[in-house]
Amino acid sequence: MKYRAFHTLSYGLYIVTTESEGKKYGYIGNTVFQVTSEPPQLVISSHKNNFTTQKILDSGKFAVSVLQKEVNTSLIGIFGFTSGAEMDKFENINTISAVTGAPIVFDSSVAWFDCKVVNTFDVGTHILIMGEVVDSDIISGEEPLTYDYYREKYRMLSPQNAPTFVAREKLEQEKEPEKIAKPAVQVEDEHEIIRDENGVYICLICGFRYDPEMGDPTVGIPPGTPFEDLPEDYKCPICNAGKDYFRKSD
Amino acid sequence: MKYRAFHTLSYGLYIVTTESEGKKYGYIGNTVFQVTSEPPQLVISSHKNNFTTQKILDSGKFAVSVLQKEVNTSLIGIFGFTSGAEMDKFENINTISAVTGAPIVFDSSVAWFDCKVVNTFDVGTHILIMGEVVDSDIISGEEPLTYDYYREKYRMLSPQNAPTFVAREKLEQEKEPEKIAKPAVQVEDEHEIIRDENGVYICLICGFRYDPEMGDPTVGIPPGTPFEDLPEDYKCPICNAGKDYFRKSD
Repeated sequence: MKYRAFHTLSYGLYIVTTESEGKKYGYIGNTVFQVTSEPPQLVISSHKNNFTTQKILDSGKFAVSVLQKEVNTSLIGIFGFTSGAEMDKFENINTISAVTGAPIVFDSSVAWFDCKVVNTFDVGTHILIMGEVVDSDIISGEEPLTYDYYREKYRMLSPQNAPTFVAREKLEQEKEPEKIAKPAVQVEDEHEIIRDENGVYICLICGFRYDPEMGDPTVGIPPGTPFEDLPEDYKCPICNAGKDYFRKSD
Repeated sequence: MKYRAFHTLSYGLYIVTTESEGKKYGYIGNTVFQVTSEPPQLVISSHKNNFTTQKILDSGKFAVSVLQKEVNTSLIGIFGFTSGAEMDKFENINTISAVTGAPIVFDSSVAWFDCKVVNTFDVGTHILIMGEVVDSDIISGEEPLTYDYYREKYRMLSPQNAPTFVAREKLEQEKEPEKIAKPAVQVEDEHEIIRDENGVYICLICGFRYDPEMGDPTVGIPPGTPFEDLPEDYKCPICNAGKDYFRKSD
């Protein structure tokens, strides 16, 4: 079994949301797919421990916002790496609603689907939730974000509750030593370039890697800036964690 | 409801296969997705009328071959637009097998999964078939083929039995006339360029468009070659149909 094979499956990235008793809930998911066209039905695979999952089952509705390629990364931090049990993820988020009332995240989205739950299937750690699409629209002509692009650009693993989560240790066991050219480099993925971990800092909250060779173009930090020289109010571009949450990569 | 919104969902393209009573069966699918990681399980959405679907249910096993970006298009013709009831799709196809015995299409694939069926869920026209992955491997470091790339490159609709099939008429109803710049052009998709249908011929079997402005680089036909000037033994690069199966586009 090669776990890296799972990285060759293609997905998009979506914000899956619902509304229950006047409150909004949502998470970032990559497993959203059409299963029939007559009627148009989507299935999502949601972790049973996700706070939003239970709220979707309670309310019988969900919406899917299709993220655009050049996404506002703070959306990924908020919806991917925090829990609705602890905070209102929708504070400062621009939403609309269509038929069911589930919130549609308007900014950074190219299209949306509004669905009523018509069936659920227990698959173990996750539950497949099937929705009939009662309304849908295109927001912009931008390219949709793919999971592959996201993984390559931000060099991150899935959140632990994602169906596609593979523990870093499992992937590391698959490293083939003969492909490692010299010490102090790491083969992160067979499709990725071999890179130097020198000076890299990892966000403990979401796994984002700050690489001084690249800087952080999202907030104008030029290539060549050591982590130590980042401003004190520097925040993780993904989950908004402060500098204190970063640790040096081994 | 905007049907074009469904085109913003991201998928890969796969050959889903099985083996039953010594015979091999397979089809091209885009709905293959991981639903849990512990244990690793994949779900496929298969049309009940697909010949292969019944064979997967009979045999209790299936394999998924992940196609590479620059795929041998005859594979798509054979597995996407012919039926296993009428022909042996595996004649001249290079396969291997792993644990279950389901055939893995080796050429043009970047990775594969071998699965035993552990559950099925009826979703109407289609059935969700869940497989536990009993083995998987990487074949090459090539990029996987995405459905988006396939649609853009070959300008095709889904086969009629695909979960993502949307009738051309539905999409055409959504055309916004003000976006059509002049007569004799057609907006195929909001993300696509506006193009001239002049001299275009459509394959009646699979929907492939022969555009004289582009020629057919897969077999060395240069741009600017009218359909009428193609050699008599010209075949559709997707489904292998002869020239007789082409009709002029309106």
